[in-house]
Amino acid sequence: MVQQDVTPIPAESIHHWDHEADVVIAGYGVAGAAAAVEAVAAGADVLVLERTGSWGGAAAMAGGFIYLGGGTALQRACGFDDSVADMTAYLNAAMGPGADADRIADYCEGSVEHFDWLVSCGVPFKAEFFGEPGWEPMGDQGLMYSGGENAHPFNTIARPAPRGHVPQMADKKQGEASAGFMLMKPLVETATAGGARGLFDVRVQSLVVAPDGRVVGIRARQYGGDVTIRARRGVVLATGSFAYNDAMVAQYAPRISGRPAASIEQHDGQGIRMAQALGADLAHMDATEVAIFIDPQQLVRGILVNGRGQRFVAEDTYPGRVGQATLYHQDNTAYLVIDGAAQEEAMASASPQLMMRPPTWVCDTVAELEQEMGLAPGSLQSTVASYNEAAERREDPLLHKKAQWLKPIGSPVGAVDLRESTGGFTLGGLKTTLDAEVLDVSGQPIAGLYAAGRSASGLAAWGYASGISLGDGSFYGRRAGRHAAKG
Amino acid sequence: MVQQDVTPIPAESIHHWDHEADVVIAGYGVAGAAAAVEAVAAGADVLVLERTGSWGGAAAMAGGFIYLGGGTALQRACGFDDSVADMTAYLNAAMGPGADADRIADYCEGSVEHFDWLVSCGVPFKAEFFGEPGWEPMGDQGLMYSGGENAHPFNTIARPAPRGHVPQMADKKQGEASAGFMLMKPLVETATAGGARGLFDVRVQSLVVAPDGRVVGIRARQYGGDVTIRARRGVVLATGSFAYNDAMVAQYAPRISGRPAASIEQHDGQGIRMAQALGADLAHMDATEVAIFIDPQQLVRGILVNGRGQRFVAEDTYPGRVGQATLYHQDNTAYLVIDGAAQEEAMASASPQLMMRPPTWVCDTVAELEQEMGLAPGSLQSTVASYNEAAERREDPLLHKKAQWLKPIGSPVGAVDLRESTGGFTLGGLKTTLDAEVLDVSGQPIAGLYAAGRSASGLAAWGYASGISLGDGSFYGRRAGRHAAKG
Repeated sequence: MVQQDVTPIPAESIHHWDHEADVVIAGYGVAGAAAAVEAVAAGADVLVLERTGSWGGAAAMAGGFIYLGGGTALQRACGFDDSVADMTAYLNAAMGPGADADRIADYCEGSVEHFDWLVSCGVPFKAEFFGEPGWEPMGDQGLMYSGGENAHPFNTIARPAPRGHVPQMADKKQGEASAGFMLMKPLVETATAGGARGLFDVRVQSLVVAPDGRVVGIRARQYGGDVTIRARRGVVLATGSFAYNDAMVAQYAPRISGRPAASIEQHDGQGIRMAQALGADLAHMDATEVAIFIDPQQLVRGILVNGRGQRFVAEDTYPGRVGQATLYHQDNTAYLVIDGAAQEEAMASASPQLMMRPPTWVCDTVAELEQEMGLAPGSLQSTVASYNEAAERREDPLLHKKAQWLKPIGSPVGAVDLRESTGGFTLGGLKTTLDAEVLDVSGQPIAGLYAAGRSASGLAAWGYASGISLGDGSFYGRRAGRHAAKG
Repeated sequence: MVQQDVTPIPAESIHHWDHEADVVIAGYGVAGAAAAVEAVAAGADVLVLERTGSWGGAAAMAGGFIYLGGGTALQRACGFDDSVADMTAYLNAAMGPGADADRIADYCEGSVEHFDWLVSCGVPFKAEFFGEPGWEPMGDQGLMYSGGENAHPFNTIARPAPRGHVPQMADKKQGEASAGFMLMKPLVETATAGGARGLFDVRVQSLVVAPDGRVVGIRARQYGGDVTIRARRGVVLATGSFAYNDAMVAQYAPRISGRPAASIEQHDGQGIRMAQALGADLAHMDATEVAIFIDPQQLVRGILVNGRGQRFVAEDTYPGRVGQATLYHQDNTAYLVIDGAAQEEAMASASPQLMMRPPTWVCDTVAELEQEMGLAPGSLQSTVASYNEAAERREDPLLHKKAQWLKPIGSPVGAVDLRESTGGFTLGGLKTTLDAEVLDVSGQPIAGLYAAGRSASGLAAWGYASGISLGDGSFYGRRAGRHAAKG
């Protein structure tokens, strides 16, 4: 990828504006759509620039989790008690180290209202809880644990409640519209009904800046030519992450290099760099979400070991946490050790089995398996012996996997090779205020410039839970839209 | 710390220059001194701005390692063969993931010449090898392993050679001038003899920029007033790391928050932010050096376990690597398990014992110790049993500690609590070309602006070896000085 020129354009050099609006939003994913809804509601004339041929962004392809809590109507309808204090305590523990406590407090306090707002925009949720292990609900259930809240150590830190809110699909089948699409469609319809216009196949290139430093527009490319778009009140960057910009990933998040997943190719960091060129500050550029490519129904029924044959994470926690621990702390090396009976039980589980993996090795004894896998002599044997001894008593003193998943490992015993089986996306981006103003490196807001979604740093510094990105993207997208509309 | 205004100053607004030179260097540590030597050698009039009352920077307080190899005169005089290929292979493995292979190749190719240049500037080296475990030589020896080159896994990747080159002190005693001082003194004397001027008690604030974007000076504070310094040919930023800027550490390297070490308080990231305000790009801001506060003589004689009672790193590798593994991969939790005989042997070792730690717990049996420490039942017992069984045969199949340090752990057995016993400094900074030009986020050099030392990203992306910072700081400091002098 050739590095593009993102040098700011002096407003004086622009003699013709091709388009004009009060609020110009770059990117029609979840943050852009939420910004558009709120900006039109505040009376602004809104234009959304989208690089592809249609709205949607990464959100429309996503599983659709929105991380919300503190007692939303959906949580209550499903019979769960939750509080702002518990949600805050969980996020402070799970999104760090380095998580922004002020932002977490702000988000948790606004979470119930944000859920109601989504519903008011027409986003459908079915009041049914999905309690099985999995990356997402198997059916059209609206609520699921999506961050390991009920697993160790989080269940000792805050009272657990499921907070993964999932929009309902009319008829969930493989290949149908995703839950993320069911989030995006009503938001875009609401924005459009309010008067927001969309301009498609437009790639934003540079910010246009007045002599006093205020951002007053965008220069972009469309159909091979330059276009200029004037923003009378403000510009909102909602252009997504930098997961697909190889150079930026190498500079800022090298350990996820070569393995972008659950993101889209349009996420090339362009909006981040456009603002950096103006002296914008960044935050948490090293943070990433990490998925591990195995079915959680299988994961919970085995033990996960590293290259030294040691267990390192409770197998029943949020699988994204397992992915982070594997990629970052175990050199991207893990093996799932699972016996024949557990493997059969996993295969028979209700899961869609998209990520069910056959064992790479199967042996009669752990000693043979250890040798086949090339692990240090005795290492896996000692791990399995310790695990089995405690599992007989339904205990896991080492990692506190829940009793329901504890069963001694018998024969035949297999192992799934999970080396290099992770992928993810970047979480860092522009540093913003809670009003979504982009901050410069002197700590001052850049006048006229706002950012939300994964082009901005959000709730996550290091940990993650499914739904954080659609959550903070829509939440701070709204803030950006409201504040940009004020000008 | 209040965030300072680093907004660039338009040159048109400056009506009076208080000082003027061809090349203006900010910071009189190792990178600034090396830049000054080369800039005066190239015929430039040079002014070095230093924030404190004297030259020195972090370098003058450092242990003084300079990481060099490929067959330097000192390596040869000490009887070691080394090659550019072995040095390159080691650094590519040890400085990553994400290390910049082009920069490593460039540095390794220039390494022998760079050593000769240091000698020609008057830096003294004693041709004697120090072979004991330790953070630095006990006496005035000039050469030592400083990156685990002869430990697993690096000894399987490249032919090992010691590459930690240490300037000789006249009379090394506790409290005397450091080896880093013996590096700095001759460099500053060489620069001064060449005509470089120093201006002290000057805090740089902002870059001054011509209408065409070229950096033409610096605005600074001195004795409570503003001063302006014109740079006719170029500005070199050599202002050090951001290890003491709490906000930047929280944004970019949160896991080292609250534990800066082996750095100086002047390292507040100012130079980095001044260039960011102009749209400069960054690299490897998450990377850090990490020290673990224990004497290596003690470390090699025990086994290091994590909070799950598991071993995780060869105890005889570079102790900075042990620090990184502990802080980043084990939640900053480690315990050194060591028996009475080994502890006594460590205490009797030749080490200055500055970091010799008494055991926190001592018991008759490992079972009792495990319980005292609060580890999961059986976890430490199984680790010690496996270790002892192989150590009887002088083998360590799990982590490949060298045979000389392998001895079964007996009774009484103690453990040193090494939780929260790490500290370090930041390695990321401005993204530069191999000519030390600062790059902007469009990938273009910012005219007139150079950077070296820890305000720039250097050889290390993630790993580290002692001597990398003084090494690349002096090496690319020279490049910066030479290229800035050309204008």
